[in-house]
Amino acid sequence: ALEGNDADLEKILNEYHASEIAILFEKLPQEAKEKIISILPADFASDVIAEMDEEHHPEEILINLDPEKRTEIVEELDDDVATDIIAQLDEDEQQEILSDLDHEDASNIRTLLSYAEDTAGGLMTTEITTVNIGMNKMEALDAVIKQSEEQEEFYTIFAVDDANILQGIVSLKNIIKARHDVMIRDLVVTEFVHVQADVDQEEVARLIQQYNINSIPVVDEHMKLLGRITVDDIIDVMQEENTEDILKISGVSEDEELSGSWQDAVKSRLPWLVINLGTAFLAASIIRSFDDTVKALPIMSAYMTIIAGMGGNAATQALAVTVRRISLSDLTDNQAYRTILKELLVGMINGASNGLIVLLVALFYDANPMLGLVLFLAMTGNLLIAGITGASIPLILKRVGIDPAVASSIIITTFTDCFGFLLPLWVASKLLL
Amino acid sequence: ALEGNDADLEKILNEYHASEIAILFEKLPQEAKEKIISILPADFASDVIAEMDEEHHPEEILINLDPEKRTEIVEELDDDVATDIIAQLDEDEQQEILSDLDHEDASNIRTLLSYAEDTAGGLMTTEITTVNIGMNKMEALDAVIKQSEEQEEFYTIFAVDDANILQGIVSLKNIIKARHDVMIRDLVVTEFVHVQADVDQEEVARLIQQYNINSIPVVDEHMKLLGRITVDDIIDVMQEENTEDILKISGVSEDEELSGSWQDAVKSRLPWLVINLGTAFLAASIIRSFDDTVKALPIMSAYMTIIAGMGGNAATQALAVTVRRISLSDLTDNQAYRTILKELLVGMINGASNGLIVLLVALFYDANPMLGLVLFLAMTGNLLIAGITGASIPLILKRVGIDPAVASSIIITTFTDCFGFLLPLWVASKLLL
Repeated sequence: ALEGNDADLEKILNEYHASEIAILFEKLPQEAKEKIISILPADFASDVIAEMDEEHHPEEILINLDPEKRTEIVEELDDDVATDIIAQLDEDEQQEILSDLDHEDASNIRTLLSYAEDTAGGLMTTEITTVNIGMNKMEALDAVIKQSEEQEEFYTIFAVDDANILQGIVSLKNIIKARHDVMIRDLVVTEFVHVQADVDQEEVARLIQQYNINSIPVVDEHMKLLGRITVDDIIDVMQEENTEDILKISGVSEDEELSGSWQDAVKSRLPWLVINLGTAFLAASIIRSFDDTVKALPIMSAYMTIIAGMGGNAATQALAVTVRRISLSDLTDNQAYRTILKELLVGMINGASNGLIVLLVALFYDANPMLGLVLFLAMTGNLLIAGITGASIPLILKRVGIDPAVASSIIITTFTDCFGFLLPLWVASKLLL
Repeated sequence: ALEGNDADLEKILNEYHASEIAILFEKLPQEAKEKIISILPADFASDVIAEMDEEHHPEEILINLDPEKRTEIVEELDDDVATDIIAQLDEDEQQEILSDLDHEDASNIRTLLSYAEDTAGGLMTTEITTVNIGMNKMEALDAVIKQSEEQEEFYTIFAVDDANILQGIVSLKNIIKARHDVMIRDLVVTEFVHVQADVDQEEVARLIQQYNINSIPVVDEHMKLLGRITVDDIIDVMQEENTEDILKISGVSEDEELSGSWQDAVKSRLPWLVINLGTAFLAASIIRSFDDTVKALPIMSAYMTIIAGMGGNAATQALAVTVRRISLSDLTDNQAYRTILKELLVGMINGASNGLIVLLVALFYDANPMLGLVLFLAMTGNLLIAGITGASIPLILKRVGIDPAVASSIIITTFTDCFGFLLPLWVASKLLL
């Protein structure tokens, strides 16, 4: 019965692209992932492992696999991908995996492991197509075809019917390798990723990244082939979107040209500053309403700026992590909920830690234990609020269709400023006056 | 004599890669750029135009060119690139350029112009290689070779000698197209971009982007071929570096995993918060030293938080623009100097604008013109300081070899906090007490 279930599971999994299973893996427990990888055929399993994000630790699946299966999978991996994964293990485990591989693969991976991860050496693959300058055309073509067996496919050609309706994709390698009488319809892969012309460029970038493809066909609603987008076009889009993210999160209009004129810069930034000034008046009005407290305890004036400022810093941290997560992938409700819970916890712990330092200063410098207690409570409270808002505001904005990068920081600063003044002044008015 | 000079100039320019001339263009006046483009042969000129950044307005060169030359250049451009450039012109100018083109090019570009710039349609090229599913192998290969004449090269193969020393690159297209007796050494391009294995991955990404290439060979110090890095490997690097930039600029350790545990998040963020707390005490000590001013004028307590906060916001804007500029390209001394000057000016104007609003509030709400003057001066001064530090601190850090993204914001916040308290309190103590 168990065998039968495995076969069923394999059949179901075969319907998916490796990158889709890799995404599914993010939500599965470790044993389930290991089970699935051990069921899948080695070439498909290696695709799934290759598609897994480093953050989700593909190396932990690998090290727990049956050694024979593991060797098959590692030998199917591109050597640069295998190296990145194996590099995460400790030396004994690396040795264990490498000793099972055939000599050439092991030696390639050993060489790649010797380069620092963030250098050209750590990034390259050694599986390259080379020809000798002394070859003639036919010798060179033979060499290319022979070497290409081992390699990623090189150039994707689109196969259409007489009405220019896209039927599938075929790699140039497979055309060159085919016997003379083979028809294109026999070579064509009919499952492929495609987009319609009105799809947003961020979505195109996400697809090209997710499926690790070099080009994507663009079609109309009847699957008529309109054009093609290649990975190098996507690079410029990504730099542009990333620049926009960094600018928006910092309150600069996404349209500001980095090397533009001062007039353009004023136009792009002044509106945001004026809105901020409005929210700053709101926060300041809280201080005004505690006029008596400030007069009686002028020292609060210095401490509350510290608490408000620290709230802003902690919120910025939570915001950056959350905005970046959102822009790299959509979060499920459950993931969103756990993100907020995590940031709440992080905010409370960081708040209590910094609160303790402020408490000690109030104790030894101002010799005022009650003031210390007030400040400890206010700091913990404000950083807890910073964590919750830093994570939840961008998630809420995203759900209601507002760009989280542009609107989040102003809302969050308003929260941390207001509570940064309100909490210490209110607690002080209760405990100290 | 003029003709002779043109020929000399062309000879000199021919030594450079198109992308290098495009970078040179950033520093040249408009007439010089137009002159150079008109001297260069159309295919090289079109490469230069294609490599120019949108920010440096290639369309302005195009529209001022002699129409015949312009038509030649536009027909050499890939249709998606031509479309992006032409889209920047107004309708009359677009019409002027399109009416000179041959019918097919004009119609392709008209179609592409009809898609929104940030969609799949706006991104795609219509110059694609297609085969009909009814073709056999040889028909398909013929079709590919015929269409490839018009297209970007498809797959780069590395040509080595017997000692595996890299001699040059050759495109698969050129091998397939060659006569049977042609030798690889006759097809090889001996000028090509390459990197050594220890080059930083950011530099690799910059080269692949700058030269718009699909792969780059990795060699040792004797030009022995070690491996290859492809553009799709670079995409992951770029996302990683961009995530790190956003995290670092927000005071989160670059190693924090976006979906990591709360323990990791505390470990990554708490140290930075504690450092910030130290600088916050520094700023707060300024308030303490003006204890008398705060006691006499408790209203200053509210206003100075506004001025310090606005300084922080303005500095964050200047910082984001500068950090992003630095991470996209190295700035010359002259560019760095002008960046600081620009941010100084922007800071002063935005400071005076916001200062005016605060002045009006002090005038009508607090009925205190002298308070208004104090606040106006302090706001202008603090945003001016915010502009200078926001631009100069990352530039200075970069020169001395410290990562500007990670260290800038803490230094800058310290400046804007300290001056945000010092300026209003000091000016108030002079003018109001």
